[in-house]
Amino acid sequence: MVKLSDVNSKLLKAHYAVRGKIVIRAQEMEEQGKKIIYCNIGNPQALRQKPLTFVRQILSLLEYPALMDQPGADKIFPADVIRRARMILEKNPAGTGAYTQSAGIPFIRKAIAGFIEGRDGIPADHNRILLTEGASKGVHTVFTLLTNKDNDGYMIPIPQYPLYSAAIELYGARRINYFLDEGNHWGLDGAELERSIEEAVKNGIDPVAIAVINPGNPTGAVLSRKNIGMVIRFAKKHGLAILADEVYQDNVYAEGLEFHSFAKVMHELGEKEVTLFSFHSVSKGFLGECGHRGGYMEIRNMPDDVYAEVIKLLSIGLCANVDGQLVTYLMAAPPQPGDESYELYAKEKGAILGDLKEKAGILGKGLNEIEGMSVDVPEGAMYAFVKFDLPHPKGVDPEAMTPAERHKYETARDSKYCLRLLEGTGICVVPGSGFGQRPGTLHFRTTFLPPKEDILELVGKMKKFHVSYVAKLLEA
Amino acid sequence: MVKLSDVNSKLLKAHYAVRGKIVIRAQEMEEQGKKIIYCNIGNPQALRQKPLTFVRQILSLLEYPALMDQPGADKIFPADVIRRARMILEKNPAGTGAYTQSAGIPFIRKAIAGFIEGRDGIPADHNRILLTEGASKGVHTVFTLLTNKDNDGYMIPIPQYPLYSAAIELYGARRINYFLDEGNHWGLDGAELERSIEEAVKNGIDPVAIAVINPGNPTGAVLSRKNIGMVIRFAKKHGLAILADEVYQDNVYAEGLEFHSFAKVMHELGEKEVTLFSFHSVSKGFLGECGHRGGYMEIRNMPDDVYAEVIKLLSIGLCANVDGQLVTYLMAAPPQPGDESYELYAKEKGAILGDLKEKAGILGKGLNEIEGMSVDVPEGAMYAFVKFDLPHPKGVDPEAMTPAERHKYETARDSKYCLRLLEGTGICVVPGSGFGQRPGTLHFRTTFLPPKEDILELVGKMKKFHVSYVAKLLEA
Repeated sequence: MVKLSDVNSKLLKAHYAVRGKIVIRAQEMEEQGKKIIYCNIGNPQALRQKPLTFVRQILSLLEYPALMDQPGADKIFPADVIRRARMILEKNPAGTGAYTQSAGIPFIRKAIAGFIEGRDGIPADHNRILLTEGASKGVHTVFTLLTNKDNDGYMIPIPQYPLYSAAIELYGARRINYFLDEGNHWGLDGAELERSIEEAVKNGIDPVAIAVINPGNPTGAVLSRKNIGMVIRFAKKHGLAILADEVYQDNVYAEGLEFHSFAKVMHELGEKEVTLFSFHSVSKGFLGECGHRGGYMEIRNMPDDVYAEVIKLLSIGLCANVDGQLVTYLMAAPPQPGDESYELYAKEKGAILGDLKEKAGILGKGLNEIEGMSVDVPEGAMYAFVKFDLPHPKGVDPEAMTPAERHKYETARDSKYCLRLLEGTGICVVPGSGFGQRPGTLHFRTTFLPPKEDILELVGKMKKFHVSYVAKLLEA
Repeated sequence: MVKLSDVNSKLLKAHYAVRGKIVIRAQEMEEQGKKIIYCNIGNPQALRQKPLTFVRQILSLLEYPALMDQPGADKIFPADVIRRARMILEKNPAGTGAYTQSAGIPFIRKAIAGFIEGRDGIPADHNRILLTEGASKGVHTVFTLLTNKDNDGYMIPIPQYPLYSAAIELYGARRINYFLDEGNHWGLDGAELERSIEEAVKNGIDPVAIAVINPGNPTGAVLSRKNIGMVIRFAKKHGLAILADEVYQDNVYAEGLEFHSFAKVMHELGEKEVTLFSFHSVSKGFLGECGHRGGYMEIRNMPDDVYAEVIKLLSIGLCANVDGQLVTYLMAAPPQPGDESYELYAKEKGAILGDLKEKAGILGKGLNEIEGMSVDVPEGAMYAFVKFDLPHPKGVDPEAMTPAERHKYETARDSKYCLRLLEGTGICVVPGSGFGQRPGTLHFRTTFLPPKEDILELVGKMKKFHVSYVAKLLEA
C-alpha cells in the first residue's frame, strides 16, 4: 500500500491555506447543521451573487442547440442571444462536447485579442493567447515551464495569494518574499524589491520571475501606472519574467483609481525584452463564474521555440473545458448598446459592482471601529486583509525568539484565533500566516462577498468575539 | 526574454504524439481549405457523433434555471429531465457557477459510489472518489503524488496511450516498458511483466506502479478476468500501485467479451494491500463528451494520511468544472425504465454503440485486405493499431544498427509515412512510434470514429496510398 513516505516530498511540503484545515472544520460544522458564513474564498455565486442572464442564456442554448428551433424560443430568449448562440455554433460546429485545439478555440482567442486592444488601445496577438481553466491553470503552466533548477526562485508579494507559494513548493522552486507596505496602503516599493532580490542572490537563489497581483489579493490594493513601470524596469534590470495576476481588473472601487494592465504599460514603455505572462479569469470581476473554470493567459515577448513548448505542455492536458472557454469569450465580447440584452446586462453588472463597493466600505469601516483591529478599506478585488492585535501570554517575549520560533508562535496564534472565531461565530476566514505577514503582525483575510445583511452580522459578531477572545488571553 | 535554455528540461524531453507535429500540419492544411479526416484522436463529437439528448437537456436547464419556470417548458423538456434538474439544483444550490469542494460535489461522489456498486456488485466508498477534469487530470494527479525520486519507475504497456509516457517525462520519472503481444490479440503476459521489471531493477530503477489500459488504447484489446487477477498478484508481489485506465469500459464490441473492472477483481480476490487508482471519463463510451472535461478517479487501499495529500493536491487546482461534474453524475445515474426520457436515451445509446461496432468491423476488415497491412479487428475502445510493412532502401540493414540507431530510423519511417498519408489523402493518423512498438515493426493508430461513409473512403484511399508509397520506395 502507498505510504506517506512514498509520497512526493514536494507535495508533502506544500500548503494551501485557502482550502486548508479551517475550511475542512467549517464543512464538518455545516454538516452538523451550523450556519457558516464562508468568507474564506472568492466564490461569489456560493454567496448568492447571481450569474449574468446573458451569459447563462447563451450557455443554455449551446448545451442544447435544438432549443433555438423550439416554437416560442424567441419569447424566452432575446434576439441577440439567439443570434450570438448561432454565430458561436457556426464558428465552433463541434459544440460544447468536443475537445478543442490545446490553446483554445481559434475565434475565441481572436476575440480576446480584440478585448485587450479595446481595453488598452494596444495591439495583441491572438497567437500568444491561451485559454486556461481559470487563471490558476495558467499560473501552474508557467511554473512548469520556467522551473528548471533547484535554485530557481520566484519573487512573490507578502502577503500573497497562496496559489503562488503552493506552486513554488510543488514545483520545487525557491521563494523570494518581497513585502508590501501595510503602512502605505499595501504599496509596492522599488527599494524593497531590490532588498529582497539581493538577499535571495546572496543565498544562492537564481531569480527567474516576479509575480505581481493587481488589484491585490489579499490586500485589495490597486497599483499605479508608475508602480507598474517600476516593476517592469526592475524585471528588465534583473532578467526576470513577469507573472501579472490581473483577475480582479474589473474590481476597482476606490474613487480616482483605475486598473492599468502590465501589457499596456509595457507597450507604452516600448519594452520588447521582458517576457510577460498576464492572467485573467471569469471567476472574479462581475461574472463570478468560478464553477465554469474559464480564463486566459496572454504572453508577450516570447520566442516561437519557447511558445511551442507552452503549447506542448497544454496539449498533454488536452484542452480547457469548452463551456469555460465560452464564458471567457462572453467576458471578452459582452453585449453592446443597441443589442436586445444590453440593458439588462448593464443593470446586472452595475448592481453587482455597486454592491461589492458598498460592502467593501461597510466591512472596512466596521472592522476599523473594533479596538485592536485595523484594515485598509479595500480599493479593489474581493478581500480585506485585516490586522489584529493580541496580548502575549505572561513571560512570552517574541523579540527574544529566533525567527523560526517566532514564525511558529505567530502562525499558531492566528490559526487558533481563526479556528475559535469559526467555532464561536460560524465565520470562516483564513489566517494571515497562510498569505504571509511581517513578523510581529497578525492578520486574517476575509472576503466581502456575502450578502450585505451577512456582512453587517459579521462585523457585529467579530467585534463581540474579538473583545471576549482578548479578555480571555489577558485573564490567562 | 525567456529562452529555450531556460525552459524546464523535463518538458523539453516530453512528447505527446496524439497532438504532435502531424496534427499541427493537418490544422494548417485545413485552414488552406483541404478536407481532413481527423483519425488522430478519440474526439467523437468533432466527428459528428451526437450528444445524448437527456444529458444536454439537463445541462441546458442548469445553466439557466429560470428556463424551468417558463410557460411551455414542460412541452420542450420531458418531465423526468425537469425533475432531475430540480433535484440537482436542490442538492447543489450554488449552481454551475460556484467552486465546489476540491474532491467534487458530495452528492455526485455518492452517486458514483452507487454506480460502481451497481456495475460490479461490490461496495464502494464515496470518500475515495474524486471528480477530475477528464481521466487525464486524474492520471496527472497520481504521477504528482507518487513520483518522489529520480529513479521512480512506472510500468507502461507498449503500445500505450502517450499520456503515460508524456507524464513520466514531465514528472521526471523512469519508464518501464512491458510489451503487449501483437501475435496474441495484444494480450498481456505475466512472463513479460516479470522480464520487464527485472530488467528495470537491474538498471537501478525503483518501480512504484503499473499502468494498465483496459479496454486497450491504442490496441482495442479487452482484458480477461484472469489476466486482471494476474496483474493484481504481480503488483502485490512487487509492491506496486495500479493505475487502471478504464475509460473505454462501455466500448466493448467483440462477441463473448465483457469488461471487468480492476476494483471488482480486486474485491473478489480479497486483496486489501495493493493501492488501486481507477480512472473513468465522460469523454469516451457512448457519451463522447470530451469538451466537458468530466471524469472521476476511484482509489482503493489508501491510508487516510496519504488520501489527505491527494485532497490537498486537488485543492491547489481548486476544483473540476461543474458542468463536467454534472455530466459525470449523469453518466453514473442515467434515466431508468419508466422515466419519460428512457426510451430516447436507450435508442441513442444503442445507435452510437451499434455504429461504433459496425465501423470497427469495416475498418478492421478493409485494412486487413490491403497487402502489407494487418490489424486485429478492435474488440473494444475506439482505435485500431495497424501494422504495416515497408521495404528498406537498398543497402540499409536495420539488424546491423545499434538499438538507438534503429529506433531513430524506424521513428523517421513511420512519421514520414503518416505525414505523406496526410498530405496525399487528408487522413490524419498518429505514427506508431508515438505509442511505442517492437523494434522491426511499423504501425499507425487510427480511430474508427468518423461517419461510416468516411471510414469506407478512408479504407479506399489508404489502399491506394500504401500501394503507391511502397512502389516509390522500391523504385528509389
